[in-house]
Amino acid sequence: MTATVGTDARVDLVVPDLVVPDLSPEALADVTARIAATAAEYDRTGAVPVEGLRVAHEAGLLTATVGTQFGGPGIGPIDTARILIALGEGDASVALLAANTLITHQGQAVAEHWPAHYYADLLHRGTQGPALANAIRAEPELGAPARGGLPATTLTRRDDGWSLSGRKSYATGGTALAYHVVWAVVDDQTADAKHPQVGHVIVPADLPGISWIETWDHLGLRASNTHDVVYDDVRLPLDAFVEIPRGADGVYRDPAAAASLGSFGHPALYIGVARAARTAFVDYTRNRVPAALGRPIATTERIQTVAGEIDAQIAQAETLLFGTLLRAETGDQSHLPQLSLLKVQIARSVIAATQTAVSALGNPGLTRTLPLERHLRDALCVRVHPPQEDVALVAAGRRVLDQ
Amino acid sequence: MTATVGTDARVDLVVPDLVVPDLSPEALADVTARIAATAAEYDRTGAVPVEGLRVAHEAGLLTATVGTQFGGPGIGPIDTARILIALGEGDASVALLAANTLITHQGQAVAEHWPAHYYADLLHRGTQGPALANAIRAEPELGAPARGGLPATTLTRRDDGWSLSGRKSYATGGTALAYHVVWAVVDDQTADAKHPQVGHVIVPADLPGISWIETWDHLGLRASNTHDVVYDDVRLPLDAFVEIPRGADGVYRDPAAAASLGSFGHPALYIGVARAARTAFVDYTRNRVPAALGRPIATTERIQTVAGEIDAQIAQAETLLFGTLLRAETGDQSHLPQLSLLKVQIARSVIAATQTAVSALGNPGLTRTLPLERHLRDALCVRVHPPQEDVALVAAGRRVLDQ
Amino acid sequence: MTATVGTDARVDLVVPDLVVPDLSPEALADVTARIAATAAEYDRTGAVPVEGLRVAHEAGLLTATVGTQFGGPGIGPIDTARILIALGEGDASVALLAANTLITHQGQAVAEHWPAHYYADLLHRGTQGPALANAIRAEPELGAPARGGLPATTLTRRDDGWSLSGRKSYATGGTALAYHVVWAVVDDQTADAKHPQVGHVIVPADLPGISWIETWDHLGLRASNTHDVVYDDVRLPLDAFVEIPRGADGVYRDPAAAASLGSFGHPALYIGVARAARTAFVDYTRNRVPAALGRPIATTERIQTVAGEIDAQIAQAETLLFGTLLRAETGDQSHLPQLSLLKVQIARSVIAATQTAVSALGNPGLTRTLPLERHLRDALCVRVHPPQEDVALVAAGRRVLDQ
Amino acid sequence: MTATVGTDARVDLVVPDLVVPDLSPEALADVTARIAATAAEYDRTGAVPVEGLRVAHEAGLLTATVGTQFGGPGIGPIDTARILIALGEGDASVALLAANTLITHQGQAVAEHWPAHYYADLLHRGTQGPALANAIRAEPELGAPARGGLPATTLTRRDDGWSLSGRKSYATGGTALAYHVVWAVVDDQTADAKHPQVGHVIVPADLPGISWIETWDHLGLRASNTHDVVYDDVRLPLDAFVEIPRGADGVYRDPAAAASLGSFGHPALYIGVARAARTAFVDYTRNRVPAALGRPIATTERIQTVAGEIDAQIAQAETLLFGTLLRAETGDQSHLPQLSLLKVQIARSVIAATQTAVSALGNPGLTRTLPLERHLRDALCVRVHPPQEDVALVAAGRRVLDQ
Repeated sequence: MTATVGTDARVDLVVPDLVVPDLSPEALADVTARIAATAAEYDRTGAVPVEGLRVAHEAGLLTATVGTQFGGPGIGPIDTARILIALGEGDASVALLAANTLITHQGQAVAEHWPAHYYADLLHRGTQGPALANAIRAEPELGAPARGGLPATTLTRRDDGWSLSGRKSYATGGTALAYHVVWAVVDDQTADAKHPQVGHVIVPADLPGISWIETWDHLGLRASNTHDVVYDDVRLPLDAFVEIPRGADGVYRDPAAAASLGSFGHPALYIGVARAARTAFVDYTRNRVPAALGRPIATTERIQTVAGEIDAQIAQAETLLFGTLLRAETGDQSHLPQLSLLKVQIARSVIAATQTAVSALGNPGLTRTLPLERHLRDALCVRVHPPQEDVALVAAGRRVLDQ
Repeated sequence: MTATVGTDARVDLVVPDLVVPDLSPEALADVTARIAATAAEYDRTGAVPVEGLRVAHEAGLLTATVGTQFGGPGIGPIDTARILIALGEGDASVALLAANTLITHQGQAVAEHWPAHYYADLLHRGTQGPALANAIRAEPELGAPARGGLPATTLTRRDDGWSLSGRKSYATGGTALAYHVVWAVVDDQTADAKHPQVGHVIVPADLPGISWIETWDHLGLRASNTHDVVYDDVRLPLDAFVEIPRGADGVYRDPAAAASLGSFGHPALYIGVARAARTAFVDYTRNRVPAALGRPIATTERIQTVAGEIDAQIAQAETLLFGTLLRAETGDQSHLPQLSLLKVQIARSVIAATQTAVSALGNPGLTRTLPLERHLRDALCVRVHPPQEDVALVAAGRRVLDQ
Repeated sequence: MTATVGTDARVDLVVPDLVVPDLSPEALADVTARIAATAAEYDRTGAVPVEGLRVAHEAGLLTATVGTQFGGPGIGPIDTARILIALGEGDASVALLAANTLITHQGQAVAEHWPAHYYADLLHRGTQGPALANAIRAEPELGAPARGGLPATTLTRRDDGWSLSGRKSYATGGTALAYHVVWAVVDDQTADAKHPQVGHVIVPADLPGISWIETWDHLGLRASNTHDVVYDDVRLPLDAFVEIPRGADGVYRDPAAAASLGSFGHPALYIGVARAARTAFVDYTRNRVPAALGRPIATTERIQTVAGEIDAQIAQAETLLFGTLLRAETGDQSHLPQLSLLKVQIARSVIAATQTAVSALGNPGLTRTLPLERHLRDALCVRVHPPQEDVALVAAGRRVLDQ
Repeated sequence: MTATVGTDARVDLVVPDLVVPDLSPEALADVTARIAATAAEYDRTGAVPVEGLRVAHEAGLLTATVGTQFGGPGIGPIDTARILIALGEGDASVALLAANTLITHQGQAVAEHWPAHYYADLLHRGTQGPALANAIRAEPELGAPARGGLPATTLTRRDDGWSLSGRKSYATGGTALAYHVVWAVVDDQTADAKHPQVGHVIVPADLPGISWIETWDHLGLRASNTHDVVYDDVRLPLDAFVEIPRGADGVYRDPAAAASLGSFGHPALYIGVARAARTAFVDYTRNRVPAALGRPIATTERIQTVAGEIDAQIAQAETLLFGTLLRAETGDQSHLPQLSLLKVQIARSVIAATQTAVSALGNPGLTRTLPLERHLRDALCVRVHPPQEDVALVAAGRRVLDQ
């Protein structure tokens, strides 16, 4: 399979074949197992999980959403969710890096907005190894963009292009990124100061002026390398910037303020974490034979009830995820205003599943010699992805109450 | 539309046309509104909700699952769920009577097991007015059949047929039923006492020997007429009995011990109750203007957060319901072992939605002059439908733990 | 024992002996049992629970807080709590009427503010039979006084006294009251309109101009007769009014906006309800022997765990109640700013205990032929007593955050 | 102050004065602050928290429960709880080491059972620096002693004393201990094999044959050094062993199977952790000013409600703790059978307080550059102290149900 990339007359390269991933349950389970083998070690060191990324890349999972117009597999949201569950079950950090990259490709498939030579480069590098991309949005002073406000990171016209300057926080991927998609505001003294241009700029990760500050030392997702990054007069071509259009009312609304179907990759990966916690619980309770009991604790009604509760939360999370996507596929639109709530409910289920497992076991749920405490730490990170619970609830309440 | 009913050579009647229901959102909303108009009154009196049943019948909703081989609309589980949500939002008791009838027709559509002249009679009466049928299973001594055990109600061979005797409890529908489907054991002294025949017998409601004891005085679903019934030497033809086959291991397993896709009509109707609670909450908070506040309490962030939480629970319940059915439709089988858990999770969501509304309002959530307390009472009944939570959790735990 | 009542020179009567209540656990348990015997019937009819009140009166429990300066037993808050637990375990409506009366006597014992002849009359009638008093505060338009605002019920100077006019809601006690303590504002055109006088006026229940509107039809506490009352030019002496002083900052603060130690009688009575629910759960599960199980369900680990959870919530509620009072008795003041929160936590425990019992039993928890559903309905009323949860949490948060 | 120690004729030494601790709120707050200064660092390294122990020792808090008969302050359970709250608020690991030591001294004060020269030595060392003691009970194969079973660690008669051999797990204190109180069984071939002698043996930590295996690598309480320890033919005098007497029915019951008043030191220290989490929440939200909001998030109703909820859980935990102890002090015995439940409820409150704080903040609740995630990790350890929740609930249920 080959493809002509983009509409840019200057770029007309042929993309080498991208791997068509095997999405059978068996193949995904194999990926999960291989990635899981190194997850604990990367959690300890916080290093870029190169082994896990290599496995994901070789299975074609990092480019699975590349659009068919670019020669990619162009898989849809349900298979994307299945991939991210499988990756998250293996290593949540690998899955987060993958999710961001898959979302980037998916966005480009739906509406081409990258400079053609940049996207061609990303695809080319994606045939050679893991080529990661991510939206870089949060800023130390601003807080979560989804809560409102504009970035302090600026784009200034210089010669025939832009100069990018500013500091970003929570930039998942760190030095492992091939491209940044940076949220910024155009600094144009001649324009209407009240309505500045706001949008995203595509930035190759190896340009001069980009430096990383290793701020990430977190309870969970420790290998996600979600550090701070500083842009100091980074020079970019004009077409690297894509504005986010304002609403008809002239008001700027951040695209992450409400959940979209495309954003369900994040909850999917945490469902994988919950599944890993279930497996850890099963493994432990089937093998733990206290002398006073004389048989595995998995044979007791108490542990069976706990396992049932964990499974109930996972069944709920998975049915919410696939049900949301399937309802949309069948044309049902009644739940689209509830997407943010549905993400929140998946997050709650994931945390409930994991906390249930941990709380039932005492020390074995907390010791670092067993995997359960890591799954808990990773699961707790599900809440940080926007929209956050309080924002989603109030927004939904206003809709329901028509206020 | 006409149809030849059954395979019984003695019966070859032509069924008059059954109403093909209008399942558009607008039509269902209209049914909801008309049924809701009398719900509070039937809740007070506990009388058979004849007005609500009449509305449901005229809209063709009580026969919507009659198989196409009988000239019926033969609608599937998703539309059945939509109907029962709409009915439950109007009057939970009407919806329960409808659910039982729709499940009966659905079962006959999938595998014909009624004596042909009985089913022809049921259909014929269904064209004239509400013709209700229900499975009559629980017994005072036994407890819920889903928890195991065999009925004490017996079928004894008499002449060329059966004699049915016993007492049943929780027989929803009461004197409004046209047909009973009674769970009984064959009393055969010559047979293997350890492996008696167990099954269901189709019983016309107007036969001699059937008497009702008005035991139903419940917190919720007060108009469902879920009374006790006594069968005293009720005479039935031989083909009125259909045995439930034992498993390959010779063990009898009650069909209600685990949830099936066909049993999701019950949770659907309670989602309707939760929707009614949401509407009651919205109506109250938009109109309540405390003097000290000077504007509707719906404008406060607190009430908006509560409304969002209610909506989150309903979004969850609906997506669990439709997601479960859609996953099955697309051939996904991974969640089929989790059906009981998914019913439990819907039940939890329904109760959470309703309790959230009630708990946020103080007295207005509890006074009988407003509808919210009725919705709470009805919602609490969702738990009584098998399989119950503790059974579902332990069974799931054993599966997960492979014990 | 005799006493001279009050400081009013015009009144110098000798009060007949008040019963000194027997507060031994055995005596209180006996009262509980006798009151419980008629509770279900009053719950059905909504009539004033005269039998229960008679039992409470004969045991001296309705006047147990009458101050020693009036010849009363003058019991303290811990014994008051014990009495109200015992009454609430028998009949929550009786307990609520008693709580309001005991709080009234307690307030008078601490700071005499009733007109002497009125209080002498109340005491005298209290020796003859149940003589109930209650604060009448809520109004239809205003909402809960604890949420702010001033009453629309007015006191106007007429001749040598007051004229009281207005409508009150949620006036617990109804026609069974001997005295009302009505929250009202002085209508004085000559005064500072921004700072009207606000306070309570003592009103004999049998004065002309008082009429009742039977609005109370509630989920719980059905025999509490919490109806609306209308005052139409009710004439009162000048000393019947006691102003609530403003704070040093000139701001009026409603005394019910935050919990005081004296207000822990209300949560106490609901702890009694939770205890009754525990007993009902124990009775049912010890006697229920499903045929398929062959022994009482109380022998199963599942029911034992549920019973343990119920007991845990009751242990918590009781220890919060007595612990709050005991900490204050020992001079610990650190928890005094948290009194509203502690009331909220007791309320949560009571509801949790009762809902746990109901949810574990299915139909037997919901049928009106068993007592559990009544206890649930009564328990849910604990939330309506101020300060309500949302108010308490925000106020506490501001304190903690020093905002 | 001086004292004659013990009843052992061979020991009659004079103990140097022990510090009488200053238990004023101000003094305890100062200890908290000084211990908190090094807590994060010990959490990172897992080293014995020598600085924190030094502070606690200098304040006299490690010997505060030494009996007055030994010249100690002999403080009671309420002040012990206050000390452990203060220590836990500073550093949970220090507090756990202190709790175990204080419980040891308290036990000796109530019933002298240590060999006199051992206890004299412990006291003497306690005047020189932190001298820690702890019960060493868990074993890898056995699980928690509170769940039943007998130890595999044995005492065998050798010459004129004992030989101790076995492996213990979760031996909090590690090499920082001065004395171990080891749970062991007497290996006596001549005795009744079904009823071996079980008890505790007092072991100086520096005897030959004791070796440590550094197994502790935990989510929380990382500096508590709860490692494994091996005893290989450790020689002890005869009076080092104290048998735990069997019940009148001949059955051995582990003293940790149910909570005693003396065991409320453990929940107390975790209340300190919850207080530290509240402070961390307050500090963060008062200083966080998102650009889009323009003022501290502590000024929002949402954050205020969260802070109120945290405070409600802490108010509950503290009132449960002090209320339990105060009820006992006043002679109330009705809650003594509920002590295990009350410990469980405190644990739930502590976890709820901490999880509420973490879940409301997103990333700032999870990053290791802020203290909140550490407090969450420490708080989760409250569940591992016996009796555990499931055991407590079932035991309580049996009591309530009289089964």
